Amino acid sequence: KINADRLWDSLMEMAKIGPGIAGGNNRQTLTDEDAEGRALFQSWCEDAGCTMGVDQMGNMFARREGTDPDALPVYVGSHLDTQPTGGKYDGVLGVLGGLEVIRSLNDLGIQTRHPIVVTNWTNEEGTRYAPAMLASGVFAGKHTQEWAYDKVDAEGKRFGDELERIGWKGDEVVGARKMHAFFELHIEQGPILEAEGKDVGVVTHGQGLRWIECTVTGKESHTGSTPMHMRRNAGRGLALITELVHEIAMKNQPGAVGAIGHVDVYPNSRNIIPGKVVFTIDMRTHLLDKLNGMVDELMARAPELCEGIGVEFSAEIVGQFDPPAFDEGCVAAVRNAAERLGYSHIDIISGAGHDACWINDVAPTAMVMCPCVDGLSHNEAEEISPEWAAAGCNVLFHAVVETAEI
Amino acid sequence: KINADRLWDSLMEMAKIGPGIAGGNNRQTLTDEDAEGRALFQSWCEDAGCTMGVDQMGNMFARREGTDPDALPVYVGSHLDTQPTGGKYDGVLGVLGGLEVIRSLNDLGIQTRHPIVVTNWTNEEGTRYAPAMLASGVFAGKHTQEWAYDKVDAEGKRFGDELERIGWKGDEVVGARKMHAFFELHIEQGPILEAEGKDVGVVTHGQGLRWIECTVTGKESHTGSTPMHMRRNAGRGLALITELVHEIAMKNQPGAVGAIGHVDVYPNSRNIIPGKVVFTIDMRTHLLDKLNGMVDELMARAPELCEGIGVEFSAEIVGQFDPPAFDEGCVAAVRNAAERLGYSHIDIISGAGHDACWINDVAPTAMVMCPCVDGLSHNEAEEISPEWAAAGCNVLFHAVVETAEI
Ligand SMILES: NC(=O)NCCC(=O)O
Ligand SMILES: NC(=O)NCCC(=O)O
Repeated sequence: KINADRLWDSLMEMAKIGPGIAGGNNRQTLTDEDAEGRALFQSWCEDAGCTMGVDQMGNMFARREGTDPDALPVYVGSHLDTQPTGGKYDGVLGVLGGLEVIRSLNDLGIQTRHPIVVTNWTNEEGTRYAPAMLASGVFAGKHTQEWAYDKVDAEGKRFGDELERIGWKGDEVVGARKMHAFFELHIEQGPILEAEGKDVGVVTHGQGLRWIECTVTGKESHTGSTPMHMRRNAGRGLALITELVHEIAMKNQPGAVGAIGHVDVYPNSRNIIPGKVVFTIDMRTHLLDKLNGMVDELMARAPELCEGIGVEFSAEIVGQFDPPAFDEGCVAAVRNAAERLGYSHIDIISGAGHDACWINDVAPTAMVMCPCVDGLSHNEAEEISPEWAAAGCNVLFHAVVETAEI
Repeated sequence: KINADRLWDSLMEMAKIGPGIAGGNNRQTLTDEDAEGRALFQSWCEDAGCTMGVDQMGNMFARREGTDPDALPVYVGSHLDTQPTGGKYDGVLGVLGGLEVIRSLNDLGIQTRHPIVVTNWTNEEGTRYAPAMLASGVFAGKHTQEWAYDKVDAEGKRFGDELERIGWKGDEVVGARKMHAFFELHIEQGPILEAEGKDVGVVTHGQGLRWIECTVTGKESHTGSTPMHMRRNAGRGLALITELVHEIAMKNQPGAVGAIGHVDVYPNSRNIIPGKVVFTIDMRTHLLDKLNGMVDELMARAPELCEGIGVEFSAEIVGQFDPPAFDEGCVAAVRNAAERLGYSHIDIISGAGHDACWINDVAPTAMVMCPCVDGLSHNEAEEISPEWAAAGCNVLFHAVVETAEI
């Protein structure tokens, strides 16, 4: 078994870097706080006897050697970056859980045939630079590195420049590493495991996602002296589409979700009718046909709705992945570990996207999930119990060690 | 008659300070650009033989002496601050039109019995610091100076500190000046004069206004892994209230208007369901009972609508004025001037709030309006013709001189 106290202490130690304003974290990708978190993780990995590799996307790889020089490594990890108002566990548990696997192997003096590599993937959250899971996406060949480098944040700063600025642009070619398998431990970020009273979730599939960046264009004019019939209020376009997205998600129950999380109103002045609103729709479900159907309905109805109120609609897909099905062998390794350790468990579908969803395309992959209080995540109040963390990490430990072979 | 070319040249010269990005201006109140515009105006006033007074709200008063030492001055002016994406004429025409009155009197060697004072009121727009017409409001005793000083902008900078920083906090007690009359020339900022083909609008009344700052509170959570029935999406509250405001305005036709111009979504991340949205509703009409009825309906229905989708509504009035009726004598002076000069004219109601609406409470007041292209204002594309500017300024000249007595 892993050392549950040490895992918890490390989680609390990491949470001191980039503290939020309400008990959580603001350690967004490629900020100074991200650099500080990376340095702490590196020092811990080196203390555990690992050697650190960094690729040109800033992905970090801490390697513990195996006994067979020809065996491909088993990878394990997640991400250290957070939302602007994020929790202490989203991503972090998977990285420090991977480190705890290595520390526990060291404690027990166990050698594995395959090397084990703990990974921190850059910019999983996608808040500062859309899309989410950007660097694991480049690793899996979904995006080119140049495309990723040219992404700009809200202040116009390029991803490539910021990666260089914080000092974490490595030399390694991205995606050159070959994997025997990849495992990711993550908090559920949803309410199912807690509601069902289960210790562990065995993730068999993920939801597919579409991020649709929309622009509604009206005409800026004076709120006081523009008669109602002469208005072209882009804010009304946002209103109608907010409700349309909700309606489409409700129509596609069970399992579908949809909302608008990011909105910019222009010029955003109390006495100017909005001339332009830019916002991003997030739609997901675990069935590809249903997901495409939802997007099709949106794309068909949104322009009409906008036309009806005298504004124009345009849209562009800025993030997408199809619903992944994880590797049967790796999923079985997770399920067997939970069973062997006597943890209660169920098979679940991941509501959120994860680096594992991309890596699944280039290596046998599976995920372990642990419950989180009220299903709350992407919120500073995100919480888990030390017992849940320990259970998830023990299952990860056994699944990884079984796959890496003693 | 005034010198139309000189007036136009001055308008174009002032527009060089704080240029916008699309041909208009960004010369927001208490910015460095505002200070620069004030300095230019001061130098022009001094060249025209005026002495400048500045009060503790930064209101500027350029005085041309009269022949009777006991006569109260006739005031004339408007504001030099602009919206973030404002036009070149909104406010500026009224200040430089007032200066042109003095320059023309100088050219013609005319002495008036009453002194004439050209005024630049601080922060008319209200975008950086709500409410609008802040400094004329303090002058008219509507707000205390301390309350105004403590207003903060989006970056947390205090009004009082910024006024001091730009060097335009004067010594004069605000509101101490007594006025014989006040005249304001302003572009219509609406479509009526152009549609009716009139040269000049004689403003008899203004609309009343309510600015209602609303907060909708839901719960931040993950867009992917929060099932639809567990969501408390504050963005939906914004959507429903956007449409409610529109519905209430439409129900109160003719003459009522309503919209939401300013919106902040928290935490504004693509994969976080909005936990909070803060926005300001702008509602207006020229009948006090109707205006109060509109606000009452909003306050009654908005909390219910929000409750229905699991979010909370709260609201606070952050700006308000009741519909003003201008002084009959001053209005007649404007109408007579237009008649005498042979300009086509109609009586109109001002759609926008103006400094004149506050000053009307402490001095006999009237306004002159000139058309603007497409009724467009609070937009960088705001445009007027030199002929419209000249007609409005000629009417202002005659009304002011008649009131100041030769
Ligand atoms: N796990 C997680 O929150 N990932 C970010 C991508 C997503 O929005 O699902
Ligand atoms: N004239 C003008 O735009 N004033 C600002 C106050 C208002 O919104 O009416």
